[in-house]
Amino acid sequence: MKRHGKSLEGLIEQTVPSSIRIQKPLDLDKPMCEPEIISRLQEIAGQNQLWRSYIGMGYYNCWVPTTIQRNILENPGWTTQYTPYQPEIAQGRLQNLLNYQTMVADMTGLDIANSSLLDEGTAAAEAMTLCGRHTKRMKFFVDRKCHPQTVAIVQTRARPLGIEVEIVDRDQADFSRGDIAGVLFQYPDTDGNIDDYHDLVEAAHSHGALAVCATDLLALTLIKSPGDIGVDIAVGNSQRFGVPLGYGGPHAAFFAVRDKLKRQIPGRLVGVTRDVQNKPAYRLALQTREQHIRRDKATSNICTAQALLANMSAMYAVYHGPEKLKHIATRVHNATHILAEGIKRTDHTIETGEFFFDTLKIRCAGDRNEVIQRAAEKMINFRLYEDGTVGVSMDETVEEKDLNDLLEIFGCKTTAADIADSFPGDKPPGSITETRHSRTTPYLQHPVFNTYHSETSIVRFMKILENKDLSLAHSMIPLGSCTMKLNSTTQMMPLSWPKFCSLHPFIPLNQAEGYKVLLEELEHDLCEITGYDNICFQPNSGAQGEYTGLMVIMAYLASKGEGHRKVCLIPMSAHGTNPASASLAGMTVKPIKVLANGSIDFEDLKRQVEAHKDDLAATMITYPSTNGIFEEGIRDMCQLVHDSGGQVYVDGANMNAQVGICRPGDYGGDVSHLNLHKTFCIPHGGGGPGMGPIGVKKHLAPFFPTNPVTPPQSTIEPGAAPLGPISAAPWGSTSILPISWAYLKMMGLQGLRVASEVAILNANYMMKRLEGPYKILYKGHKGFIAHEFIVDTREFKQMCGVEAADIAKRLQDFGFHAPTMSWPVTNTLMVEPTESEDKAELDRFCDAMLYIREEIDEIVDGRISLEQSPLKNAPHSQSIVMANHWPWPYTREQAAFPMPFVRPESKFWPSVGRIDDVYGDQNLVTSCPPMEAYE
Amino acid sequence: MKRHGKSLEGLIEQTVPSSIRIQKPLDLDKPMCEPEIISRLQEIAGQNQLWRSYIGMGYYNCWVPTTIQRNILENPGWTTQYTPYQPEIAQGRLQNLLNYQTMVADMTGLDIANSSLLDEGTAAAEAMTLCGRHTKRMKFFVDRKCHPQTVAIVQTRARPLGIEVEIVDRDQADFSRGDIAGVLFQYPDTDGNIDDYHDLVEAAHSHGALAVCATDLLALTLIKSPGDIGVDIAVGNSQRFGVPLGYGGPHAAFFAVRDKLKRQIPGRLVGVTRDVQNKPAYRLALQTREQHIRRDKATSNICTAQALLANMSAMYAVYHGPEKLKHIATRVHNATHILAEGIKRTDHTIETGEFFFDTLKIRCAGDRNEVIQRAAEKMINFRLYEDGTVGVSMDETVEEKDLNDLLEIFGCKTTAADIADSFPGDKPPGSITETRHSRTTPYLQHPVFNTYHSETSIVRFMKILENKDLSLAHSMIPLGSCTMKLNSTTQMMPLSWPKFCSLHPFIPLNQAEGYKVLLEELEHDLCEITGYDNICFQPNSGAQGEYTGLMVIMAYLASKGEGHRKVCLIPMSAHGTNPASASLAGMTVKPIKVLANGSIDFEDLKRQVEAHKDDLAATMITYPSTNGIFEEGIRDMCQLVHDSGGQVYVDGANMNAQVGICRPGDYGGDVSHLNLHKTFCIPHGGGGPGMGPIGVKKHLAPFFPTNPVTPPQSTIEPGAAPLGPISAAPWGSTSILPISWAYLKMMGLQGLRVASEVAILNANYMMKRLEGPYKILYKGHKGFIAHEFIVDTREFKQMCGVEAADIAKRLQDFGFHAPTMSWPVTNTLMVEPTESEDKAELDRFCDAMLYIREEIDEIVDGRISLEQSPLKNAPHSQSIVMANHWPWPYTREQAAFPMPFVRPESKFWPSVGRIDDVYGDQNLVTSCPPMEAYE
Repeated sequence: MKRHGKSLEGLIEQTVPSSIRIQKPLDLDKPMCEPEIISRLQEIAGQNQLWRSYIGMGYYNCWVPTTIQRNILENPGWTTQYTPYQPEIAQGRLQNLLNYQTMVADMTGLDIANSSLLDEGTAAAEAMTLCGRHTKRMKFFVDRKCHPQTVAIVQTRARPLGIEVEIVDRDQADFSRGDIAGVLFQYPDTDGNIDDYHDLVEAAHSHGALAVCATDLLALTLIKSPGDIGVDIAVGNSQRFGVPLGYGGPHAAFFAVRDKLKRQIPGRLVGVTRDVQNKPAYRLALQTREQHIRRDKATSNICTAQALLANMSAMYAVYHGPEKLKHIATRVHNATHILAEGIKRTDHTIETGEFFFDTLKIRCAGDRNEVIQRAAEKMINFRLYEDGTVGVSMDETVEEKDLNDLLEIFGCKTTAADIADSFPGDKPPGSITETRHSRTTPYLQHPVFNTYHSETSIVRFMKILENKDLSLAHSMIPLGSCTMKLNSTTQMMPLSWPKFCSLHPFIPLNQAEGYKVLLEELEHDLCEITGYDNICFQPNSGAQGEYTGLMVIMAYLASKGEGHRKVCLIPMSAHGTNPASASLAGMTVKPIKVLANGSIDFEDLKRQVEAHKDDLAATMITYPSTNGIFEEGIRDMCQLVHDSGGQVYVDGANMNAQVGICRPGDYGGDVSHLNLHKTFCIPHGGGGPGMGPIGVKKHLAPFFPTNPVTPPQSTIEPGAAPLGPISAAPWGSTSILPISWAYLKMMGLQGLRVASEVAILNANYMMKRLEGPYKILYKGHKGFIAHEFIVDTREFKQMCGVEAADIAKRLQDFGFHAPTMSWPVTNTLMVEPTESEDKAELDRFCDAMLYIREEIDEIVDGRISLEQSPLKNAPHSQSIVMANHWPWPYTREQAAFPMPFVRPESKFWPSVGRIDDVYGDQNLVTSCPPMEAYE
Repeated sequence: MKRHGKSLEGLIEQTVPSSIRIQKPLDLDKPMCEPEIISRLQEIAGQNQLWRSYIGMGYYNCWVPTTIQRNILENPGWTTQYTPYQPEIAQGRLQNLLNYQTMVADMTGLDIANSSLLDEGTAAAEAMTLCGRHTKRMKFFVDRKCHPQTVAIVQTRARPLGIEVEIVDRDQADFSRGDIAGVLFQYPDTDGNIDDYHDLVEAAHSHGALAVCATDLLALTLIKSPGDIGVDIAVGNSQRFGVPLGYGGPHAAFFAVRDKLKRQIPGRLVGVTRDVQNKPAYRLALQTREQHIRRDKATSNICTAQALLANMSAMYAVYHGPEKLKHIATRVHNATHILAEGIKRTDHTIETGEFFFDTLKIRCAGDRNEVIQRAAEKMINFRLYEDGTVGVSMDETVEEKDLNDLLEIFGCKTTAADIADSFPGDKPPGSITETRHSRTTPYLQHPVFNTYHSETSIVRFMKILENKDLSLAHSMIPLGSCTMKLNSTTQMMPLSWPKFCSLHPFIPLNQAEGYKVLLEELEHDLCEITGYDNICFQPNSGAQGEYTGLMVIMAYLASKGEGHRKVCLIPMSAHGTNPASASLAGMTVKPIKVLANGSIDFEDLKRQVEAHKDDLAATMITYPSTNGIFEEGIRDMCQLVHDSGGQVYVDGANMNAQVGICRPGDYGGDVSHLNLHKTFCIPHGGGGPGMGPIGVKKHLAPFFPTNPVTPPQSTIEPGAAPLGPISAAPWGSTSILPISWAYLKMMGLQGLRVASEVAILNANYMMKRLEGPYKILYKGHKGFIAHEFIVDTREFKQMCGVEAADIAKRLQDFGFHAPTMSWPVTNTLMVEPTESEDKAELDRFCDAMLYIREEIDEIVDGRISLEQSPLKNAPHSQSIVMANHWPWPYTREQAAFPMPFVRPESKFWPSVGRIDDVYGDQNLVTSCPPMEAYE
């Protein structure tokens, strides 16, 4: 991209208030070319050390099947789709996410599972709040033997909600007071123990409490399912099902419940429904639970899921099937028995009890440091307990050689082979599979888990699914507020490098020097871009970022003795996550009105600030506004809030219009989250992963969240008063940060600025092309918009019954994903082209919109009836267009190939007809239906 | 795969003559699992050293755009297709190969280019034979300043054909005798010079000789095109257009000619034609030139092309476009000037003349070893001439730092930046772009080279093309004799590792210790499997292997004083490459008859052997036979040939039926080539690359081909009497050998045997399912077949006019690639399922065949006419099925979704209707037609 001279600058002058435009160049590196990026990142990765980590705690080495790595993780056809809100062009991953849900429901023995949550810790916290909602009680038990990061997250989350968390020994939990909402325990527990939980669960149930367990999918192939032991909710991380450790993430966490709790489940839920031809089809179910509908009344602020990782895990299960999974688990378990037997032959003591799966807690006979030293010589990491013991967790990558190394480290003179030979029979004595804990119920019996066990067949299965999903590899996805832009291969490559992707989150910091450099450089650049002083990388989604930012504000206020300030002012046009996050942070949400032109009603803001001047905590503002306008008064608004003792939260969702042009830290923001998966090129993955680090002014930095296992340096420095953790890993989904790093370094200062300018230019170009035939809802006072705009389709409803959804579905026939629908204004379409699309693509999209406009006119003019129009019948799937019978007044070709650029040989097809949402929610099915259902 | 007990063994006993079955287990390693494979290969790669190589000689470092690497090279959708003989389901790569041809024709300024040949050296040899054929003359000039490996290959190839090659100084070439077929020169020459070639070309032309140049695509962006200087044929390697060095290959070589020579062009040629709806479509043109038609009269034995690599190079040009390519070339050229200027400031002498592009030949002032030593300290390789000079070739990866290192090595005290600053103006003085050599004609003006310059757009372009091509990622490709089997990701991954893919073929051997280990292990395993004593890896295709094997036989016979033995007996059922290769090796081909049951007519063999007992050189046998039968008398046949002083060449195309079961070296073979891209899992790449190493009994090993630059160790040992090189690189397309290595190591002894057994089982299963409705042409005397079988469809022609081609096209409607068509018997289909396909897929294919059989019956019974039947109208493209008008007596659904497993949401569509082959050959268009042609 080159500077386009004055005209581009002129546009920016017309669009962005001069009062906030950056005056001096940012301190960013010159752009690096792609080979330099790769070589610099290799250098950085080289500073990470790849030890064998047997730390466990919910994170395990695994062997990512290379065919899944290459055909899903490294394939833009799987990584660049949007969240499947347009189900007709998203059946591939919806089908596979249903596999994920089926897998989780099967393994946990529960009725309904979602797909998916961010990590095990936050899933446990969601379980706690669900228990609270369900029982209307405010006390929650957490077994002491849960993973420490899980305990800490639950505590952090409970605090602002007024939930009292009590850490208990599970065999002494007393429910008799009748005020306990639920109990969370780890199964197997963090020290490796597998106990009898029937009594605990029964005690909980008999006093009206729910039972929640955090569990391990691989262990569940061998041990009784949570459903079998009576729990109501099971949560956990599916990472060890084929997802790299990633120094903390991203991975997909799961959440499964009994049927009675299904309408309370947080996060995304895929359900089966039918399409217009009565064919089974998939789509997101029960969306009415979600924050974009329920706002501060939502059950959770969760928005981004971990779709890509859930897809990988589900495919891992599809590929291996139940027998091979059991084989893998048995190998892991047997290895643990061999190690246990070896240790028994030394003076060390195993503190884990009789029953275990993969983890041993060991008290060393002599000096623990000697053991650690011997391990270090072999580049092996253990879990180091504070009580002086060590923890060792086995995983599917453990080979005989690894076991021998471990035996040697613990001073056992026998080899693994000799120990195994000493076992009578083909199982180690005490194998969990021979005990009362052994699993007796079947799992993964559905054909999908029993068909694709060769590479040949799994490749074809993945290809079929991939080809059902529209992604950026097909056409533009002009999603307002979601910034679906370039995800370049060079940025994605480091994700597959072992020295980035195979690090355990809790290794000693000196093994992750490379990540340290990367985080520091990324922090520097993001600070320069935003005008903030510090960045916290822990939040692993945008909503997590909001929550963290608000929690930091609350902690800051409390530190000043202003803990009573709880009101959070949020414009009515804000993202639904805003009020939901504020609510979870313990704030009271008060809406601010929006003017007819889409701007915040400054007068109403003034009134509200005045009304709440004693209890105002914060105002959340999205800038440029969710209506696509750079509001002129932004500085004044921020000043007003500050003057009344409040903090300003600037939602970073729209940073793509600002980078290099203006900075929230300059015009008044105290804190923002940055959606690295929007502006900073992390691909959306079909609905996650995301990353939502927050930038803050320095007065807020001392309150950054910590981690109980590996606290980031800044949280243990003098003056720090950190929050508890808000994600399980210290830096969230660390392994995708190189993507954003690479983007920033490739673009450099000028590239970043030009990108923002071109994003604005592209939006204005499209707006001008569509204006007239379509009404543009909001524009700035000079007639220009920022990087997105709202096409107002409301009048069509009255004129002829056409709704925004009809236009959205009809766009599918042209091979396009719809713009953001009915947000922030019902029955409108919000278009954001981004800078990544060229003029030809913008024109094709505009041509399609204008063609559709003519189709609307045909209805208005009475030339065709609404019911018989292509708009109402859209999208036209192959089975509709190729049916022997064609009942419509327009032609098949008009249906399928309405314009010359939609060609038979390259058309992207919706794989089903229009989906019946209501039917699916009324007849909720969230796991794979039997094969007969398809016949 | 597990042993299926007696029944599988029983089948083998019924199928493979007991006299040849292996009696003792082979000495192969136990199978390694995938993680072990990766880790062992990393270890091996680690033994290769990655120096910066500025050796040149036709091989240059380049930056493979990561988006092309990931979306083509690493994508099974691009690597696992077959050669595009079924064009309706291969339009994607045909379109892009047309881009390749257009690119080459544009850059060389000639009329027609093919896609593609194996390397520059063999392309030059093909040019020589073309000159000979065209002029009917037997002398050929080669300029002394061609790359040495090219000169040597031309010499090797000329010898058996009786062509006299004279090495000349180009300015002294004397054509006046009128007996010179042509002259080959290098442009720029091997020392880097760019001269005036008009006089040479004119001299050649004025005496009826053709002018051939070997050239460099990148240089041609700046210097006059070969067409401009008058040459008739241009050849070269397109490697530096985005293909890794690969320690020698694979890369695509090009071959471009003036229009008058178009019907003489060797190798694959893509042409434009029209489909049944008159839409433009692509397919292989002028196939009548090829050896499968013309056998020993063919212009060339070339069969495998380098389709995958040609696709990468074409996409590199599409991505960069003419301006960026020129920019890259200018950067390279300027860097060379900077280096030249730096060297001029030292005491060294530049021997390259005034005009150069990227290469300098330098005579060192003092001891050359000091320069070499300083280079070695920086891990830099130069070309080391025998005359004591060094050669340095610049490339697109050269950065300022590299130039500074080079300047330092040559003792220049100035930095690259300072030298550049000292140039007046923005070009170095003497820049080739300012001289009479400067290019003046435009290139790459077609829109396809001027549209996809962003990653966003190129990804979409690649995806559209990918989705037009049926590959193993979609369904089985049951190609008799071509063994389209599993290509696993783990086997493919090392191809992307720099320590395998970024080595120059002429680096010192001690930098390639890893490859040495890999070659040794692969040689060991292949010897065990075949029963041979040695393997030569130089031949980079099956046909090259045949040629090499026969040349080795001829050299062996000559060494015994039996050089007069020239007759080669070849069964009439043999692959067309057999006679073509024998012919090129200077042999006289005599056919042997085949019995009605498909076996070699032993009596005829006896007669022929007797008739030629004094001049019999060899017999070529395919085993199991090309008719899919393990012939009983194979041992006796071999013995008979040996007894008469002949050698036995066993064609290895059908090794997939033999591995672990029987060995050609045991039952009488003296030499075989092994198609590593058939039995040993190198994917077909849509028509190449392949690898065709030969195995020999030890008496033939001394004659293995050598390489003039880097002779393999065995060719310089005492007793060696090597052939000249038959490929440009010492070990052919070395970088794809890890694929076969990994396959063998993963399978291990038992896996390999079971694979062969299951391949035979699968073929017999399908044969039994199809037998009855279809006639099976040949079976063994116990009623079983080997790993493939011929469905005899000839009777349908008489019964109702249906031909094998109709069945082949109709299979496309079911999402299947047709079996091998009309080979080895006209109007039949040869089916080879391989072991990689599961029963469900075999059944789907059989179901489709049986359904089609019923459709044939409908015609036979008169229920539908031939012309109106789905068989004649197949394949049904979307534009046919979705046309507003449907003129056929069967339904649209029957056309497109004939069986339940062909579903709208997952169907693979032919992207055009049936192609008109004749029209295309009559109206030959071999470069991109103007855009208007599509409207």
